[in-house]
Amino acid sequence: MTDTNMPPALRFMLAARRSELEGLEGLAQTCELVTQIGELVHALQRERGYSNLYLGSQTPAHLTQLNALTQEAKAVEQRVVVSFEGIDLYAASASDRARLFNRLAYVMHALDELPGLRRRIRDRLLSPLEATTALTRLIGGLLAVVFEAADTAIDPVITRVLVAMFNFMQGKELAGQERASGVAGFSAGYFDKALRDRIEHLAHSQERCFQIFSDFADDQSRSLWRDQQGSATVVQIVRLRGVALKTSETERVDPTLSELWFELNTLRIDAMRAVEIHLANVLLNNCHTSIKQARADLENHRMLLNRLVGLQSAGAVDQTVLFNVQALDLDSVPQDGLGHHLGRSVLDLLQAQSQRLLSANDERDEAREALNERKLVERAKRLLMDEHQLSESDAYERMRVAAMERGQRMVDVAQTLLAFAAGRPASRKRP
Amino acid sequence: MTDTNMPPALRFMLAARRSELEGLEGLAQTCELVTQIGELVHALQRERGYSNLYLGSQTPAHLTQLNALTQEAKAVEQRVVVSFEGIDLYAASASDRARLFNRLAYVMHALDELPGLRRRIRDRLLSPLEATTALTRLIGGLLAVVFEAADTAIDPVITRVLVAMFNFMQGKELAGQERASGVAGFSAGYFDKALRDRIEHLAHSQERCFQIFSDFADDQSRSLWRDQQGSATVVQIVRLRGVALKTSETERVDPTLSELWFELNTLRIDAMRAVEIHLANVLLNNCHTSIKQARADLENHRMLLNRLVGLQSAGAVDQTVLFNVQALDLDSVPQDGLGHHLGRSVLDLLQAQSQRLLSANDERDEAREALNERKLVERAKRLLMDEHQLSESDAYERMRVAAMERGQRMVDVAQTLLAFAAGRPASRKRP
Repeated sequence: MTDTNMPPALRFMLAARRSELEGLEGLAQTCELVTQIGELVHALQRERGYSNLYLGSQTPAHLTQLNALTQEAKAVEQRVVVSFEGIDLYAASASDRARLFNRLAYVMHALDELPGLRRRIRDRLLSPLEATTALTRLIGGLLAVVFEAADTAIDPVITRVLVAMFNFMQGKELAGQERASGVAGFSAGYFDKALRDRIEHLAHSQERCFQIFSDFADDQSRSLWRDQQGSATVVQIVRLRGVALKTSETERVDPTLSELWFELNTLRIDAMRAVEIHLANVLLNNCHTSIKQARADLENHRMLLNRLVGLQSAGAVDQTVLFNVQALDLDSVPQDGLGHHLGRSVLDLLQAQSQRLLSANDERDEAREALNERKLVERAKRLLMDEHQLSESDAYERMRVAAMERGQRMVDVAQTLLAFAAGRPASRKRP
Repeated sequence: MTDTNMPPALRFMLAARRSELEGLEGLAQTCELVTQIGELVHALQRERGYSNLYLGSQTPAHLTQLNALTQEAKAVEQRVVVSFEGIDLYAASASDRARLFNRLAYVMHALDELPGLRRRIRDRLLSPLEATTALTRLIGGLLAVVFEAADTAIDPVITRVLVAMFNFMQGKELAGQERASGVAGFSAGYFDKALRDRIEHLAHSQERCFQIFSDFADDQSRSLWRDQQGSATVVQIVRLRGVALKTSETERVDPTLSELWFELNTLRIDAMRAVEIHLANVLLNNCHTSIKQARADLENHRMLLNRLVGLQSAGAVDQTVLFNVQALDLDSVPQDGLGHHLGRSVLDLLQAQSQRLLSANDERDEAREALNERKLVERAKRLLMDEHQLSESDAYERMRVAAMERGQRMVDVAQTLLAFAAGRPASRKRP
């Protein structure tokens, strides 16, 4: 018996189930992409580190190492581009795909520019800072794809893993930026006020990211991460960070510390990659399990409903049922005892399905809230741009400086700005 | 030139636009459904009113009137069912459709039961309260469809109208319930404590709904509504409500006031329908305008990108561009002056598109927050069910009583409950 022979109510129930399954299948594709992006980001972070070293020195050994890393990155890049191009851009899809596609467009564009960037680095046409910021921007674009994936995922369990993953990747990226800032400071023999502020800021932001990661990750990823935190490498990094923060133009340190700093941080970042890989496996396993479950549920549901319909047409049950419950209390089953068996069974099923969808939504929203911080910062930035006719970079810079000066997190500054704005004529009343 | 000849980045940009357009087209279909549901709810509210009168008296005139209203409701019903059945349940769609489909399944099921319900009413097998609650439940199911539509709409402008519309429909439904409660009280010659509490509760809840409606509606709908509030009908209803709240077993009033109360409230509810029709027109016009705009934007965008590609292949511009901006500041255009024209143009377009999508999302989320109250009540209800092993109806009833006793709104009670629950072991740490 096909679904089309079913009464409309049952067809809609099955369609709801099928819609969930399709949503999960689309999500699984996005998750595959996210794990590949993790790999590419790691390769680019390594390439960025050595680009920096190469441009900062004249050592030929660095070029050999850089070339090797570039080859590695290119190999990953090719796989990622093939995946991107495999996305069906014409598939009917919800509008939330618009944000994802837009982020991907940005990444594709940045990847097109990568060969030119690499040439300029080898020709020493760029400063270490210029090369770093160019690669940092590309990595930021890749992380933005992961962010959108987390922010638009429909399944609560998978959303939790994506939130953990985005925050871990973001924390790892900040660790990479701290490595670069440290190399700059130690090479110079001291850290000026701006560089010390930056190191502190990066350290705090990492802490925040890894905290959210810990809140949302599975036990095993969390314990892997905890173990790394106690390692000799991390202990030494924390000590060197302390040294860095005590330097000044008059309090200098041995510039060769720069190499030690680089090595230790590279070890730390490579170790982080192991946690990331574990998270990626959890993510893909979850997708797999959820899809299998959704498919089995759909089949069970179909069989169950068909059996009900069969009983009904055999005259075994009457379809009449009466609703008699609390007004406005949509999701409760009638308790008046007037309902007959089929009616009650269908209502029970509907009720269970509603309940499940509502709880799933709540759980997902709860996990998504952890992404809110980033959104608040974006919103405050746009506010500044509108109010003071600032460029986006200038608005961001102003918030960054305000955060550093007050020892606050960006999100606190953002919230303060938005709260002030909310005190003005209500924004609700836009017609 | 077709899109497939374009560089991938540009293809993704167009896909983002196309995805927006498709989302709007799906939304327009849902909005058509919502306006039809408004019509059906109104017809059922009228039928409910006269079912009540018919069951409460032995006047044959009521049956004639009831039969006429049933015929009207059936005609609307048929059109709505045809629309429901026209929904493509197999169209690829996001999982948020699951909630909508599930709500529709519930409504379809309830509509199947309607003939039986009508028969029982005519055979006087039900009390007025039983008939009212059965129809109220169906209307609640229809309103839940409108709620899902508002909560899953992707366009900020349309979301605002849907939020206004849901709240207006909900307010109108509460007015219908107040009419029924008033008829019960006046017919008996007095209102007991429970009935007085219910009247007050319904009056407050209406106020709240219409406040949110006013916050989100267009100027014309709002002014239509304001004019009605000053009408002689409303003035008389408010006066009668005051009379009702002063009655008690020892302070009775003339039972024939019941007819006046019914007439006045019917006039008021029919007038509300005019506002609802205006809102529905605004909704459909907005859908139409947004789709036209999105289609034109997509075409412009396609032409612009093709022109860029043409210039590039003619050698007029170089594709090389370098990114050099603030780390993590994803959405700003490079300001290093290193970018060439094509690169800059594409980045400018990407930037504008990102900006637009982000602002649209923010605005939409802001509008959706007004729906949050209902969600908080649902969440608190489920909490009570879990904690005290209550049925859903009992949990709801407990909250309703708590709200009445404290003179609080349901949402305040819900928030208090949830805040207490949040004080217990963190819910974030679910693995």
